[in-house]
Amino acid sequence: MLTASVCTIGDEILIGQIVDTNSFHIAQELNLLGIKVQYMLSVGDDHGEIIDGLRNCLAKTDIVITTGGLGPTKDDITKDALRQLSFSDGYRNSEEQFSVDRHILSQRGIPLSENNRAQAMVPDNAEVIVNKIGTAPIMAFPFDKVKLQKLGINSNITKMLYSMPGVPFETISALPDVCNHIKAHFDLDEVEHRTVETFGIAESTLSDMIAPWENALPKDLHLAYLPNPTLGVRLRLSYYGMHDPDAKKRIDAEFDKLYGQLGEIIYGEGNDDLQTVIGRMLREKGCTMSVAESCTGGHISGLITSVAGCSDYYKGSVTSYANQVKTNVLEVDPQTIERFGAVSSQCVEQMATGVLKVLDSDYSVATSGIAGPGGGSTEKPVGLCWIGVAHRERKSGAVTVKSKSVRFSSTRAVNIERFSSYALDYLRSMIIHS
Amino acid sequence: MLTASVCTIGDEILIGQIVDTNSFHIAQELNLLGIKVQYMLSVGDDHGEIIDGLRNCLAKTDIVITTGGLGPTKDDITKDALRQLSFSDGYRNSEEQFSVDRHILSQRGIPLSENNRAQAMVPDNAEVIVNKIGTAPIMAFPFDKVKLQKLGINSNITKMLYSMPGVPFETISALPDVCNHIKAHFDLDEVEHRTVETFGIAESTLSDMIAPWENALPKDLHLAYLPNPTLGVRLRLSYYGMHDPDAKKRIDAEFDKLYGQLGEIIYGEGNDDLQTVIGRMLREKGCTMSVAESCTGGHISGLITSVAGCSDYYKGSVTSYANQVKTNVLEVDPQTIERFGAVSSQCVEQMATGVLKVLDSDYSVATSGIAGPGGGSTEKPVGLCWIGVAHRERKSGAVTVKSKSVRFSSTRAVNIERFSSYALDYLRSMIIHS
Repeated sequence: MLTASVCTIGDEILIGQIVDTNSFHIAQELNLLGIKVQYMLSVGDDHGEIIDGLRNCLAKTDIVITTGGLGPTKDDITKDALRQLSFSDGYRNSEEQFSVDRHILSQRGIPLSENNRAQAMVPDNAEVIVNKIGTAPIMAFPFDKVKLQKLGINSNITKMLYSMPGVPFETISALPDVCNHIKAHFDLDEVEHRTVETFGIAESTLSDMIAPWENALPKDLHLAYLPNPTLGVRLRLSYYGMHDPDAKKRIDAEFDKLYGQLGEIIYGEGNDDLQTVIGRMLREKGCTMSVAESCTGGHISGLITSVAGCSDYYKGSVTSYANQVKTNVLEVDPQTIERFGAVSSQCVEQMATGVLKVLDSDYSVATSGIAGPGGGSTEKPVGLCWIGVAHRERKSGAVTVKSKSVRFSSTRAVNIERFSSYALDYLRSMIIHS
Repeated sequence: MLTASVCTIGDEILIGQIVDTNSFHIAQELNLLGIKVQYMLSVGDDHGEIIDGLRNCLAKTDIVITTGGLGPTKDDITKDALRQLSFSDGYRNSEEQFSVDRHILSQRGIPLSENNRAQAMVPDNAEVIVNKIGTAPIMAFPFDKVKLQKLGINSNITKMLYSMPGVPFETISALPDVCNHIKAHFDLDEVEHRTVETFGIAESTLSDMIAPWENALPKDLHLAYLPNPTLGVRLRLSYYGMHDPDAKKRIDAEFDKLYGQLGEIIYGEGNDDLQTVIGRMLREKGCTMSVAESCTGGHISGLITSVAGCSDYYKGSVTSYANQVKTNVLEVDPQTIERFGAVSSQCVEQMATGVLKVLDSDYSVATSGIAGPGGGSTEKPVGLCWIGVAHRERKSGAVTVKSKSVRFSSTRAVNIERFSSYALDYLRSMIIHS
């Protein structure tokens, strides 16, 4: 199995100014190619540290991907370290990148500066992969046996070092091109993956449930559990190996069995999230939805509208933080709040039917709970949330409404995230069964 | 200046399953102590890799902080690597941690397992810092000259290695204790910091504006620009050095000058964010607010309710994604939308006054724009957002309303974040001036 390392460059990471998300995205993509990421490091904008760090990476792994240090103000340090490390004599202008840079700058109405010219210069032995959305080029440096030996590294293969820009959306945008370059350069195993997303079942329980299936899997198919505390557990089945024309079919056949067993516990595939899946179901049905939030404070609406094109099915939401908004706008009966409290089955059901009516939608979801850290009582502790879902049938106008409660014991922010995921999943179930 | 490195342990980072946020938080805290983080790395759950990585860290820096690898299923690998690296002969039970563990488990209603017993075992030369909220202990390992020499490292001082749990909220919770241990062990410089947060001015412009002030700063006070594309630029003034009883006063005096120059461009200090500052101002005034969102889809409401205790001043919001909700719930004149479109000064002003009235609040903010990636026109391109703010005077009932537009050209998610920040800042300005 090929190995890789990721080296992020930049003082902003080391002083705790930004979270390094580039390593995460790169690791994910390499993993999908069947490449084992063995090592990640971050070094500052310092010539010696960069050379030392990258040399270590080359010693440890076959592929090295580095990001950052190429901004118009810092490029000298990183680029010069790359030039020295790769035994390059000097720089050349990358015509291809420069023409993209001119185009980008003119679109933004920014005059071309000396710094921009410098950004398109690359060590003369670097192969350029054009950065289509930014001004810093992606550079590929082959390190053959001879070069590696000069660095004190013994290797039977030519290793590759890729230098990528550090701006996260440029890194993400350029990753497919770098992966294609890797595929062309290395003799990778054939890889087939398929991932399903499950919700609402803990990893250990899920593992018990599917143990017979898992134990009966063909030896060359590998199952990975990828749990996320908010989004559920993803199950990925992978084939790595020699060319097998049936690999995909064999994975599909196993997943057919899994679907048979797990049913609607599986909510999606690939990179699906609950809001995308809900949107797809609503669009297929030609139905609309709305949201009434209390403790989740707008988070559910934010998730729904994170999906581009959601205006096809999303009417909107009411965040009724004050009880007065619950009664005046969502038409919750004030006596309900008086008798049962705002955090109650009765209240969320009225919120759900209220928003359904006021915003004129086919489906709705409502939340009311105690996100913490303060508030709560013995009976209604911090971390408790009631969720209501409602559906109005078009023909008869009949409204169905249901509610349930969930409870978590995390921070305010995480409680809100989990309440929101459980609310979306409850809505998903309502849509499936109506 | 003391140096530190951070080593996160865990396959889940290397396969791109989770983003490593621990390194970020640790780097931030060490930076505030005046310790330079020079090196960060992530290694998998592998004995050899862990030993190799930690040895490198000890060679490079005075302090090493490692997180992760201590869960009930993995502890053998990491703990045994730590035992071997620190030349320990065996394990001992940490009574202190074990008694905390028993308490935590009984609170959660979980019976004590063999794994929990194992978690409280530590290499016999480790000093234990009790983990108050989790079952894995924090361990401090001193490496004196002799031990370091056995590892092939020359040093004049005793270095320290800290092993912390990997669960992010446990890491964050234990950081102050680890910092105190560092302060007790090392002779740190005196450190004084003060940070102000600015909004709406680009780093380069801000830098030009305050250049005379910056150039006149005393040589021993260091200014750092900490820009965040969504939240604005933070300016941090720091003193590191010998004990100076006047350091704090001198920093305060410089900040008095800065406030004089920047005025309300500064919105807060320390870890303030716009929603916290707005909450503080409203609480002081005894006023309330509400939100009407279109393109931001609930994000502004989510930010406001991320602040615990916001029910003191927050009434709620209406996300009027469909125009029908703008007209029916927020009382926007349908002719306004017909004549000027939903993305217009006229529409957001009516949304702001509408939500003010419907949710009965003193202040409100409204947004309508095109977050992308699709939609938009030459006249109203993707990335354009109109923002309206309104205020109703209590005594006279007179309503003031204003609007402005902003434009960005990023991804949907980032556009929404920026629209939201600019909307909050516009509301802040309205509150200041009314």
